[in-house]
Amino acid sequence: MPEREDKLLPDWVYRDCPAPSPAHREAAIERQRQLTKPTGALGRLEILAIDLAGLQATARPRASRVRIVVFAGDHGITAQGVSAYPQDVTVAMMANFANGGAAISVLAREIGARLEVVDAGSRAQTPIDGVVIDKPRSGTRDFSQQAALDPSDLSFAFACGMRAVERALAEKPDLLILGEMGIGNTTASAAIAAAIIGVPAATIAGNGTGLDAAGRARKAEIIEAALTHHGLREPVPDTQSVLEAVGGLEIAALCGAIISAAQAGLPMLIDGFIVSVAALAATRINGSCRPYLIFSHRSAEDGHRRVLDELDARPLLDLDLRLGEGSGAALALPIVRLACALHNGMATFAEAAVPDRAS
Amino acid sequence: MPEREDKLLPDWVYRDCPAPSPAHREAAIERQRQLTKPTGALGRLEILAIDLAGLQATARPRASRVRIVVFAGDHGITAQGVSAYPQDVTVAMMANFANGGAAISVLAREIGARLEVVDAGSRAQTPIDGVVIDKPRSGTRDFSQQAALDPSDLSFAFACGMRAVERALAEKPDLLILGEMGIGNTTASAAIAAAIIGVPAATIAGNGTGLDAAGRARKAEIIEAALTHHGLREPVPDTQSVLEAVGGLEIAALCGAIISAAQAGLPMLIDGFIVSVAALAATRINGSCRPYLIFSHRSAEDGHRRVLDELDARPLLDLDLRLGEGSGAALALPIVRLACALHNGMATFAEAAVPDRAS
Repeated sequence: MPEREDKLLPDWVYRDCPAPSPAHREAAIERQRQLTKPTGALGRLEILAIDLAGLQATARPRASRVRIVVFAGDHGITAQGVSAYPQDVTVAMMANFANGGAAISVLAREIGARLEVVDAGSRAQTPIDGVVIDKPRSGTRDFSQQAALDPSDLSFAFACGMRAVERALAEKPDLLILGEMGIGNTTASAAIAAAIIGVPAATIAGNGTGLDAAGRARKAEIIEAALTHHGLREPVPDTQSVLEAVGGLEIAALCGAIISAAQAGLPMLIDGFIVSVAALAATRINGSCRPYLIFSHRSAEDGHRRVLDELDARPLLDLDLRLGEGSGAALALPIVRLACALHNGMATFAEAAVPDRAS
Repeated sequence: MPEREDKLLPDWVYRDCPAPSPAHREAAIERQRQLTKPTGALGRLEILAIDLAGLQATARPRASRVRIVVFAGDHGITAQGVSAYPQDVTVAMMANFANGGAAISVLAREIGARLEVVDAGSRAQTPIDGVVIDKPRSGTRDFSQQAALDPSDLSFAFACGMRAVERALAEKPDLLILGEMGIGNTTASAAIAAAIIGVPAATIAGNGTGLDAAGRARKAEIIEAALTHHGLREPVPDTQSVLEAVGGLEIAALCGAIISAAQAGLPMLIDGFIVSVAALAATRINGSCRPYLIFSHRSAEDGHRRVLDELDARPLLDLDLRLGEGSGAALALPIVRLACALHNGMATFAEAAVPDRAS
C-alpha cells in the first residue's frame, strides 16, 4: 500500500464516514445473551445483528427497506478478445434488467426491493426505458493501448455513484445492494486488484463468464503487460492512478457509491468479484467506509478469494455463483433479514421462563 | 455397512420411495441453458431448481408452501452430566416453540411456514398448549446403563414421524422442514453416528450446546463405553439395533418422518447435526429416500462434517449455527425459494433478445 493516497479526487470522497455506535453494539451483544438459545448458537447471525445495530445506531436493526443499484459500463479491452460474450450484451442486458427478465430483476421482485439500473458508461447511444443515464463517455478506452479513463472521467464516475446513493437515500433504505454489468469487467477488475494488491495478474484473472484455460492465460498476459505499460508495478501505485489506467466506469461508480453510502451511514451488501474489487479500491481511498460493507457471497471467480482476503472479509454465502448483477447480494438479503427478525423477535429466558444453563 | 439390514421395523418403513422424474430433470436442465445468464453462472441454485423439478415432477419447481415439524424428546443419558443445560429445558422450550418465542418460531413466522411441535418422548407429564403428544414413553433410558429403547418404542417413534408427515400432507406442502429439541440429543446422535459409520466416538462427539474440552472428552468416553457395552462395535451393527441401544425418540421419529415424506414424494430441508444423523440412519434403513434430502447447513458441531461426508452431502449454508430446532433449514428456505423463482421467472435469450455467447 502506498505511504499515502494522493488526494486527487473530489474532496467529498475523502470525508470520514461515521463510526458505528459502541453503545448500540454493546446493547445488542447483551440482548443476544438473554435470548432463549445458548449464547453464540446462532453463529454469524448474531454477529450480523450486532454489527447492524451498531451501524444503524438502533436497538432493533432492520433490513426491510432495500434499494438495489446496478451500474453498467463497457470496456475497450474487449477488443483484445478477453470475453466469451459479444460487447453488445451489456446494452441488451440493461434492457433486460429494466424489463424484468434478468436474474437481478427476478430477485428484486421476490425480495421486495426497488431496482435502479444506471448506465454509468455503456456504449448505448440511445436511451433505454427505465435506465438512468449518467456517464462521462461511452465505454472505456482499450487499456492495453491507452489509459482507460481521463482524470475527469474518473471524478464523474465517482459522482455518478454518489448521485445514485442520493436517489436511494430519498427512500430511507435500511440497506443498499450494489451490482454491476459490463462485458469485459472481470478483466478490468482483475487488473485493478492485481495492481492494488501487488500480485501477478495470473493469480487474480479468472474465467469470467466462460473463458477456457487458454483464454484465461491470455487475459492474464494482457493485464500483466498493461500494468507494466502504465507504470503500475513499481512503486505500488495510488488507487486513483490504477482506476484511471485500467478501471471501468461502472467500477468507479461503485467506488463512489460505496464511499457515499458509508458517509451517509447506510450499510451495504457487497456482491461478488467486481463489486468486491470496487470495495477494495474504495477502502484504499477512504478506509472509514469499511465497517459498512457486509460481504454477501464468495464467487466461483477464482480471484475473488484473494480480494476477500485482502479485505479481511468472510462472505455469508458460498454457492458457486459467478453472475454479478448484485445477484449474490440479493440472495444473501433474506439471511440478513432473518438475523434481524431473530434479534428483535425472540423471547428472552426471563420472558419465556426457560431455565438458563447451569452455572 | 452390514450386508443387509434386518427388516425388524414395520413393513411400511422399507417401501420404496418414487424415483425423481428424469424427463422433468432434463427439461429443467434445458430451460437453465436458455435463461439470460451464462450457463452455470447461478451455480448451486441451478442444481437446486433442477433437482426440485425432478423430485416434484414439474416444469416449475416450488417451495412456497412449507411445513415445519419439530420433534422433541428427553434422554436418560443426561444423568451422566453430558449437557451444559438442565433437562427441564426440553419441556420449557416446547412451550416456547408453541408460544412463538423461540428461534424456530420467529423463523416460521418470517418465512410463512406453519410450525408443528410434536412431543415424541419428552418427560412432560401434562399437556402443553399447541404441542402434539405422540410418545411411547417419557424419555429414553440412560444408555450408559441399559438399552435406551425397547423395540416397540422404536416402532412407535417411527410411526410418530409418519403420522406427523400425514398431517403435513393434508396441507399439500411443496417442502418439509424437520427440526428437533432435546437436552442430551447431541450425545445420542454422536453415539448413533459413531456406531453406524464405525468411527471412534471422539471423532464425532462435539461440544453440544456448551461443553468445555473436558466435558467433551468425557462425553466421548461415555459413548465409547456404551457402544462396547451394547455390542455395537463388532460386527458393524444393524441400524435399528443402534437406535434401540443408544437412540432417542425424537431421532427415531425424524427417521420415520424422513422415510415417509420421501415415500410421499415430498422433498425435505435437512437441518444440522441431529437431523443429519437421523437422515444417515434413515438412508441406511431405506436408501431410496436419499434424493429427497436437501442439506441446509453445516453446523458448528464438529461431528456434523463427518456425517455429511458419509451422506455425500454439501449443505447450502455455513454460518456457524449450532442451535437445532430446524433453524438452519428455515434459514436456507429463502435460497431454495429464490432458486425456484429464478428458474421460473427469468427471461430466455430468445424472449429478451439478448445475444448468446459467441460460439
